[in-house]
Amino acid sequence: MIRFSVTILGSSSATPTSERNPTSQLVNHRDKLFMIDCGEGTQVTLRKMKIHFQRINHIFISHLHGDHFYGLIGLISSMHLLGRDHELHVYGPPELEEVINLQLRVSQTTLVYPLIFHATRCEKPERIFENNYLEIISFPLNHRIPTTGFLFREKQGLRKVNKEKALEIKIPAWAYERIRKGENYTDEDGTTYKNTELTFNPPAPRSYAYCSDTAYYEPAIQTIENADLLYHEATFMNDREVNATDKFHSTAAQAAKIALNARVKRLIIGHFSARYDELTPLLNEAKAVFEESYLAEEGMTFSIPQLT
Amino acid sequence: MIRFSVTILGSSSATPTSERNPTSQLVNHRDKLFMIDCGEGTQVTLRKMKIHFQRINHIFISHLHGDHFYGLIGLISSMHLLGRDHELHVYGPPELEEVINLQLRVSQTTLVYPLIFHATRCEKPERIFENNYLEIISFPLNHRIPTTGFLFREKQGLRKVNKEKALEIKIPAWAYERIRKGENYTDEDGTTYKNTELTFNPPAPRSYAYCSDTAYYEPAIQTIENADLLYHEATFMNDREVNATDKFHSTAAQAAKIALNARVKRLIIGHFSARYDELTPLLNEAKAVFEESYLAEEGMTFSIPQLT
Repeated sequence: MIRFSVTILGSSSATPTSERNPTSQLVNHRDKLFMIDCGEGTQVTLRKMKIHFQRINHIFISHLHGDHFYGLIGLISSMHLLGRDHELHVYGPPELEEVINLQLRVSQTTLVYPLIFHATRCEKPERIFENNYLEIISFPLNHRIPTTGFLFREKQGLRKVNKEKALEIKIPAWAYERIRKGENYTDEDGTTYKNTELTFNPPAPRSYAYCSDTAYYEPAIQTIENADLLYHEATFMNDREVNATDKFHSTAAQAAKIALNARVKRLIIGHFSARYDELTPLLNEAKAVFEESYLAEEGMTFSIPQLT
Repeated sequence: MIRFSVTILGSSSATPTSERNPTSQLVNHRDKLFMIDCGEGTQVTLRKMKIHFQRINHIFISHLHGDHFYGLIGLISSMHLLGRDHELHVYGPPELEEVINLQLRVSQTTLVYPLIFHATRCEKPERIFENNYLEIISFPLNHRIPTTGFLFREKQGLRKVNKEKALEIKIPAWAYERIRKGENYTDEDGTTYKNTELTFNPPAPRSYAYCSDTAYYEPAIQTIENADLLYHEATFMNDREVNATDKFHSTAAQAAKIALNARVKRLIIGHFSARYDELTPLLNEAKAVFEESYLAEEGMTFSIPQLT
């Protein structure tokens, strides 16, 4: 199976605890590593998990509250000190570039590798990255300061040629590419074969949606709907809904309601308030609304299965 | 005994390892807590060591390489989020204020407590703090960017009145203060008692000197000489002396040579390069020059005994 997974590096909100790190996640798609958010201490977590961080080429920062980016400058610096030689792309609110540059300037550091900054905006969903297999969309959330979520969405793959049939009717090499794209095939004798006779469906494109800090926000649903996996913050439980609304955060039940209404397959909740030592009650609250709910816990990896 | 101790929170150089944190120390003087340097992750180390960080009122940053200050903004933020209500004083190079302010601005944070910034300079030794019992001196070191060390020096205490003698000659209450300051005492009959008959010597003032990142630098000796305890960086071993000199760092033997020439009582070495898994060779190298050498290890506390 082609890999598409999400590893939790940190699951805590605002203040780190001795058990839980501030927010960070690693998305692995076809062995390319993408980091989402980078709270303080993330580089040490990567080391402890034996993840070679020079493999990370793209880092996405959802917003500029410290628990989502105070680890970024340390990671950028360590990549420098360890002699990185290839591009690092950082995506985030425009002021983030200023923060990075100031800290490099005061330490009189000129990075030994190219750091390419991409400013995100949060008026509407926008594609901010693509390669042959994947595109990444930023989309607005509803928090105290400008904040985006990120949708990782596979591109529709080419159709799979039925090799037995291809041998049987002796399809020439030159025709494969067109057939994979969905065209019919006409042989030298003028016989036309419908594409559906010649190919199988490719695997369904998979998607992962990341909803960082946000109040309950239904407009996000149109972007994240049908995602195979959704991460949604759940800072509080429902008995603190007023508290959550005040601080533009969500409760576990609200996260689950978004998952339900967006018809996603699975939900991960995280960004837990330091007040919760025990997380099972948050999980139960989410499960009561949306059964396929899971807790974000440090070190855990969620794989997204490939379905045909 | 009146407390004066140094606790190591981090002992690593440049890049943190999974075993060692970047530089930070906590000085406890008469139960007042002073932090020196604050590498990434320091707030979590404080939590793990169950040190209530709102008790820290003064933070001293030696220079603006990330491994010495990337944890500061996170600590400042957590103090805010946890409702600190009293002043925090931060001492460091002038640009540090800019870095703090920018990060507060982009997160739209107005601190709920007063943060008072004191810019350090590194032309010459300067007193940057004093209370009734202690003064703190910044002094220049020799690193790639402006860097200061810090000397924590107790003030000379008042003399101790010999209570038996005081009762015997019936010293009135009003005279005690003057006698403690060293004056002689003349009673109503005109008999004069020399101060040395009436008092004991106070404890000798103690001192702790912190030499953050620096090349071997003899001019520091005049400030730190006779310190009871000296911390001196020892990034490398002597076989990498060229490397150390290039990077304006010191070797373990050089740190020990400074300790020896400054006639300090004990030396702590730290800021070890991530290349050293095993630190005993660095300790042995220092001990060969200066026997009273110790390794800075996370969680270790060095108390400075009070001698009369």
